[in-house]
Amino acid sequence: MTGSPRLPPVARAIVDGDRRALARTISAVENGDPRVAGIVRSLYPRTGRTPVIGLTGPLGVGKSSLLSVLIGQLRARGKTVGVVAVDPSSPYSGGSVLGDRIRLERKANDDGVFFRSMASRGEAGGIAASTREVARLLDAAGFDVVFVETVGSGQVDVAIRGVATTSVVILVPHLGDEVQTLKAGLFEIADVFCVNKADLPGADLAAKDLSELVALGAARDGWAPPIVPTSTTTPSGIEELWTAIDAHEQFLDSTGQRTQHERARLSAEIAERVKDRMGREVAERLTRDPELRRLLDRVVARTLDPATAAEELFRTHYAPK
Amino acid sequence: MTGSPRLPPVARAIVDGDRRALARTISAVENGDPRVAGIVRSLYPRTGRTPVIGLTGPLGVGKSSLLSVLIGQLRARGKTVGVVAVDPSSPYSGGSVLGDRIRLERKANDDGVFFRSMASRGEAGGIAASTREVARLLDAAGFDVVFVETVGSGQVDVAIRGVATTSVVILVPHLGDEVQTLKAGLFEIADVFCVNKADLPGADLAAKDLSELVALGAARDGWAPPIVPTSTTTPSGIEELWTAIDAHEQFLDSTGQRTQHERARLSAEIAERVKDRMGREVAERLTRDPELRRLLDRVVARTLDPATAAEELFRTHYAPK
Repeated sequence: MTGSPRLPPVARAIVDGDRRALARTISAVENGDPRVAGIVRSLYPRTGRTPVIGLTGPLGVGKSSLLSVLIGQLRARGKTVGVVAVDPSSPYSGGSVLGDRIRLERKANDDGVFFRSMASRGEAGGIAASTREVARLLDAAGFDVVFVETVGSGQVDVAIRGVATTSVVILVPHLGDEVQTLKAGLFEIADVFCVNKADLPGADLAAKDLSELVALGAARDGWAPPIVPTSTTTPSGIEELWTAIDAHEQFLDSTGQRTQHERARLSAEIAERVKDRMGREVAERLTRDPELRRLLDRVVARTLDPATAAEELFRTHYAPK
Repeated sequence: MTGSPRLPPVARAIVDGDRRALARTISAVENGDPRVAGIVRSLYPRTGRTPVIGLTGPLGVGKSSLLSVLIGQLRARGKTVGVVAVDPSSPYSGGSVLGDRIRLERKANDDGVFFRSMASRGEAGGIAASTREVARLLDAAGFDVVFVETVGSGQVDVAIRGVATTSVVILVPHLGDEVQTLKAGLFEIADVFCVNKADLPGADLAAKDLSELVALGAARDGWAPPIVPTSTTTPSGIEELWTAIDAHEQFLDSTGQRTQHERARLSAEIAERVKDRMGREVAERLTRDPELRRLLDRVVARTLDPATAAEELFRTHYAPK
């Protein structure tokens, strides 16, 4: 990697392995501090080569423990690991998540592991955007592997495909029935399936059910998601899980799909950014601009419907030049 | 309400109480069928007067049972009720939700109750938008009360404020600790707190904890959210819950906040619609327009960062005229 003399000092520090500079910059991203934009921008050329592994699954499947063991194995091989965990800090999160976090954060004594959890309050788009920025900062900081962990709750899970190069869906044996009814959603997300707590009864059956689904479903772009049973109590299957993840990463390279996927993710990101910019612009104008205020008046008075108002607004003010 | 001779036949049928026409139109909304736009638009002038009650809370607090009992009481008073329930059909939903749904749907034999569940897959914005449309259809169909029920999972909960006139947050006694740590989020959402399963140990304590929080926090715009203990096994507190909801609805009218809130919701909706329109437009142009494809090429090649690309795109093509 060629050094850039124009890298701002904080960005330089991040690249040079200063973890406190990294932590501070992540906080700034999380808080939406506009001053961080220059740092993030300057580091962008140093990103895009690190595997970004998404881990998603419902509460209670043991994601954090699994990640903890996985990190241990990667560290034993000398690999450095950056983790961003999206915490469901809605009023309704389970307290156990926080416990898991704390357990995991103990690894922070090891300089080869960097762990950061982020709140998932606010808009789904906002979470995805911040998570992506943080994953990029970890990438630029030079970690060999970046993990993005999210608790499955509908939105964030699918959003992980906009961030991760390989997505792992983690299930447990007793979720077998749900898997059957909701297979479409699973296949949309998973590059690798992990059936954790494989020491529990029913694990073989769950893996078999999944196998049948994988066999039924057409492989997506030539990749059929492998199913890996794991256990963190034994522990077992962790090496196999990493092998499966790595195989997908190699598949991306050998088929040229890495660039193709990256292009699709970046295209979606740019569209999302323009969209957000527009949302702020319109919201602000609806309060400020007398003409737009009158438009809103008509909608409130029910003489104009919101869809038509939006279309009118788009056409008269924002349609492409 | 004055009849409009220009109401399309399906819209006319919905207003006249044809439940099958209503069900078909809701399906069309859910499937994103563009042909439904005209019907929805034509019905908009007939909306905005019905209380739209949002019910949100984590899985397992007994929302559906509570709603079931609440509906029973409203029916006994001769009120008609429309319900839209947002189902977390992510791969990770609990099977029990579906069971609850089915139990509730049995009430469909009663023509004064209309129940519809909707999948919550896809983007958070999309769910909120469809839910809002369906709530409007129920409003136009003439139900006295419309309920919107969502399972709390971070995003959807907050989104309910963009749809409901009164939002009820449902908790259970043993969630007391979480309430303490996450009070800000709760207060953002709740016009009324309901502590369900009040027959369980700890209910008094939970209600007391909440009371203290309410006392500490400044009342929002002059409204301090009441806390109602309920139980669906006894049942008890259901009448008090409705009284609390109704008190908030009356408060909205007496203070003029109904129009104020409605205006804010509509403003956000219009901004969101323009934003979505823009997102589609940009995504499409990034594939089609050679100039934009070159912009994306530079981002993929890391010679331009996504934020700058988006800003450039916005400025050159979409900045307001």
